[in-house]
Amino acid sequence: MIDCDVHHARATDQELLPFLSRGWHEFISNRGPAGIMPLTVQDGLPNPHGFMRADTFPPDGSPPGSDFEMLRQQVLDRGDVRRAILTFGDDSHVAGHHNPYFAAELARALNDWSIDRWLSRDERLVSSIMVATQLPEQAVAEIRRHADNPRMVQVMLVDNPHRYPFGHPVFHPIYAAAEEIGRPIAIHGGAGGWANPASTGGGKVNFYFEAHTLWPQVVMTHLVSFISHGVFERFPRLRLLLIEAGAAWLPSLLWRFDTDYKGLRREVPWLKKLPSEYVRDHVWLTTQPLEISPKREQVAELLGWVNGADRLCYSSDYPHWDADETNYIASRLPASWHRRVFFENALKFYGWQEADLAPVGGRNAK
Amino acid sequence: MIDCDVHHARATDQELLPFLSRGWHEFISNRGPAGIMPLTVQDGLPNPHGFMRADTFPPDGSPPGSDFEMLRQQVLDRGDVRRAILTFGDDSHVAGHHNPYFAAELARALNDWSIDRWLSRDERLVSSIMVATQLPEQAVAEIRRHADNPRMVQVMLVDNPHRYPFGHPVFHPIYAAAEEIGRPIAIHGGAGGWANPASTGGGKVNFYFEAHTLWPQVVMTHLVSFISHGVFERFPRLRLLLIEAGAAWLPSLLWRFDTDYKGLRREVPWLKKLPSEYVRDHVWLTTQPLEISPKREQVAELLGWVNGADRLCYSSDYPHWDADETNYIASRLPASWHRRVFFENALKFYGWQEADLAPVGGRNAK
Repeated sequence: MIDCDVHHARATDQELLPFLSRGWHEFISNRGPAGIMPLTVQDGLPNPHGFMRADTFPPDGSPPGSDFEMLRQQVLDRGDVRRAILTFGDDSHVAGHHNPYFAAELARALNDWSIDRWLSRDERLVSSIMVATQLPEQAVAEIRRHADNPRMVQVMLVDNPHRYPFGHPVFHPIYAAAEEIGRPIAIHGGAGGWANPASTGGGKVNFYFEAHTLWPQVVMTHLVSFISHGVFERFPRLRLLLIEAGAAWLPSLLWRFDTDYKGLRREVPWLKKLPSEYVRDHVWLTTQPLEISPKREQVAELLGWVNGADRLCYSSDYPHWDADETNYIASRLPASWHRRVFFENALKFYGWQEADLAPVGGRNAK
Repeated sequence: MIDCDVHHARATDQELLPFLSRGWHEFISNRGPAGIMPLTVQDGLPNPHGFMRADTFPPDGSPPGSDFEMLRQQVLDRGDVRRAILTFGDDSHVAGHHNPYFAAELARALNDWSIDRWLSRDERLVSSIMVATQLPEQAVAEIRRHADNPRMVQVMLVDNPHRYPFGHPVFHPIYAAAEEIGRPIAIHGGAGGWANPASTGGGKVNFYFEAHTLWPQVVMTHLVSFISHGVFERFPRLRLLLIEAGAAWLPSLLWRFDTDYKGLRREVPWLKKLPSEYVRDHVWLTTQPLEISPKREQVAELLGWVNGADRLCYSSDYPHWDADETNYIASRLPASWHRRVFFENALKFYGWQEADLAPVGGRNAK
């Protein structure tokens, strides 16, 4: 299996400090009794249960996802995982920081921390490249810095510090760099709070319950923006993965998107095919949380209408409490989809060869 | 048939002036060479084709939807319509005005204009009650003013002048008044521009093509907000119609909404049943524009999963160019649904008796 969404975390703020340049280290640390400057953005709606699965809390009190041995047992060895893509935890919201220069430095340090503290531990682990999209040119430099490290496997976008969604030209230098070094883009759902122009259409909702129900809207908007602005015409080798945004909304969105394209394409003359054809050629989605239909077969039937067997990539979302177990998700999809959803689609998305992957059980890395 | 969305319009600004109080009339008119103050909010993205069907422009150059005889021929007599619900055109955006007192006066005048100039012409016509939600207490007064006129059939919400979507308690006095006088609420999609906190989740899109594709997001958010805030527990006789927002997004949204309710209901202890059960008991949707699936039967199959035969109410959206002809929409839905979708569901939603409706062909009103 390949698990496309595993959230790793720092045990402490101190753990990140050695990866910061001296000036930023001092800026962050020398605050006297105020202690270390906050390094993570946490301004979304509070989950009434917290976010973490009860059995993922390490006994020493450090945060879920920060203990390699525990993650190895609960993710890598549990499900015959041959590769797991690390996606950071609260640190994934680096593009939500107010100070863009601070964010750029944090992104750089987080990527080096991920390589040093995680990729070195197990060859089954690979990491996302976090970028501070506040400053696209600095994000480009950060992407290029990892060009020669094949274990930094995708450029990940979460929070949006700009007014427009991710298809807007302000983000294109990032896509040019990703295409240039042969990495796909991943958009992770759940960006929340002040850093996003809007977390739902229609206004500010008041409960986490509402926000989570409507969470796919942001990712839908980014997808529509990507296609409408012609990102896949301008960067024809670019691939896009939509993480943790659900999937069952895709057919009805594409029906409307294709219909509207036929009626309104005067506005977007650079497009050369139907929106659904760009999705077919460039876009994949992760499974978790897969919508639960009243009759089990409905969700697979619906996703089958957009060739879900070839579009979905398994993800656990460990260590969150709504994480999907392998057996559970397998039970909800047709057996004929399993090999593609759990393995082959991710291979294709990332451009990997099966022979290059670690065997089940792994070996020591490096 | 009952047509649930017909946009009627004023031929001129002067047509509305007699319905304004003397002070407002002067305020609007006495601007010297600047002419009459703008009476409509038009700040959305421009449709690259304009909005109106070519054959709906009256020969005298007045706007589509403003000529009763033309509307009679093209809507009422064409499709065996026994009742058509008028929903205003650009004037429906009255809640998008900056000046809340001006908006309240306009809403009052628009409703009186609708009664005087339209309902008097044909008994098949009934009208929405426009309210300026900028000032909920004035909206309540406007709703109560029409309590004894059964041809003012619903309270219609379009633009949102407040920060929060329509389930928020700031709007509850409006729902209390609607329930008190036995009228349902209708939310019309397509509110755009500055008056809305956000027209899409994820940021400001750049093309009408994108905005229209994502248009359902605002209505989805209002629906989630309505249910989450317990509007249907607080006002158990209230019914809600979602107009011109599509329908095929409903199953996947309800799957996620029900699942999230099971996990997160600690936040909303006032709810007593699943979100999908509130929809089943309180919510209807209009047909236009029905999503177009690649295989014709898919959209009906999908909507069948949420009992679409009982939830959908036919609407033409006349005089817009994406208006649906009766025969077209009939061809896209199973024959067994037709009587309900074209007639009975609207009867039930509005609480009408068939015997009270005009015969096909109508009679002169009053």
